[in-house]
Amino acid sequence: MGTKDGAPAGKRGPYAKSKQRREDIVNAAYGVFAARGYRGGSLQDVADKVGMSQTSLLHYFPSKSELLLAVLERRDSVSGDGRPRDPEDSFVDAVIRQARFNETVPGVIELYTVLCAESITDNHPGRGYFTERYERLRRSYSRAFTALAGEGRLRPGVDPERAAASLVALWDGIQTQWLLAPESIDMAGCLRDYLELLVLPDHLAGAAGAVSSGPSR
Amino acid sequence: MGTKDGAPAGKRGPYAKSKQRREDIVNAAYGVFAARGYRGGSLQDVADKVGMSQTSLLHYFPSKSELLLAVLERRDSVSGDGRPRDPEDSFVDAVIRQARFNETVPGVIELYTVLCAESITDNHPGRGYFTERYERLRRSYSRAFTALAGEGRLRPGVDPERAAASLVALWDGIQTQWLLAPESIDMAGCLRDYLELLVLPDHLAGAAGAVSSGPSR
Repeated sequence: MGTKDGAPAGKRGPYAKSKQRREDIVNAAYGVFAARGYRGGSLQDVADKVGMSQTSLLHYFPSKSELLLAVLERRDSVSGDGRPRDPEDSFVDAVIRQARFNETVPGVIELYTVLCAESITDNHPGRGYFTERYERLRRSYSRAFTALAGEGRLRPGVDPERAAASLVALWDGIQTQWLLAPESIDMAGCLRDYLELLVLPDHLAGAAGAVSSGPSR
Repeated sequence: MGTKDGAPAGKRGPYAKSKQRREDIVNAAYGVFAARGYRGGSLQDVADKVGMSQTSLLHYFPSKSELLLAVLERRDSVSGDGRPRDPEDSFVDAVIRQARFNETVPGVIELYTVLCAESITDNHPGRGYFTERYERLRRSYSRAFTALAGEGRLRPGVDPERAAASLVALWDGIQTQWLLAPESIDMAGCLRDYLELLVLPDHLAGAAGAVSSGPSR
């Protein structure tokens, strides 16, 4: 087929075609694994969806883990990293909104949870991805808490770095419990409770002096 | 060999021998996987350690996952469930002590973390174990927080059930980050920070009236 700028499709280099094929595979995989979860989806399902053999697919992604990591990276690029990016614009609300959204995509959350835990094992291809993801999230949340402290809205005594690691941890951990017992676990509620312990309401901003003599520390 | 009560060893039934053999395997597996982690340890290592073939070992535990679950159950029976059992006796200190202990057994924590995440996938043999474990921990922690509330030591507004789920979640999640970056993550510190937000110091017990008008809610 021709293209708008008149370049015939035949002129597309092998790199561009390969890149497009890769993207098609990742898109198909996102659909397959979001719907069926980590174990329910197979490489054969993905290959069928893009109309190639499983052998050809393995040329692009040598293992299921590598394909699934590409799915998580795609998710990051579509929705930020699935977590809020602009910490100064209602950080708490953005966390809760994202947590509520996650409840609508259990297959993706399952994928994330399993790959994340597996990445801690020796030589797992996801180790770099998750190590960097955690560093980035901790930095981002730590900046958000520091900014709130600057507005007098972080509870005095709270350490922004440990609070950042704890928020990431709570979020990961509550997702696991929710996947096992969705009817018993209120993910967004638990995150909101925690953030309400850390972040003071707007109308108390500047009242940090009074707060610091409070009972929590 | 004879036994103290004079019963010759030959009289031990096949059930007792099989049970002993099973225990030997689980003990050996605990050592192998605690030292080498989830992926580093193999069924062959365990078989070598107890002096049987891998085929014989598979007669007792048909898969690696099933053997590893037995290792986690063994750990539960040795150290409670690895988490505090007597919530009324310095619950906070018991959590911190256990978290510090966990830092000394990264192989076991890795095992727990990987199996736990894998258990959320379809038909995983660990699903029942982890579902029940979470229910038990949430009940236990919820009772502990309710007891603290009765002493006037739970921050007013804190929901014991959600706090229990959140404590379990934070603990699981911070273990994952610690396994990936042990030098950056203070597991016990994060747990202590969280518990200090929830639990009021002893000398404030009974001051809940004053606290409830505080800034946190």
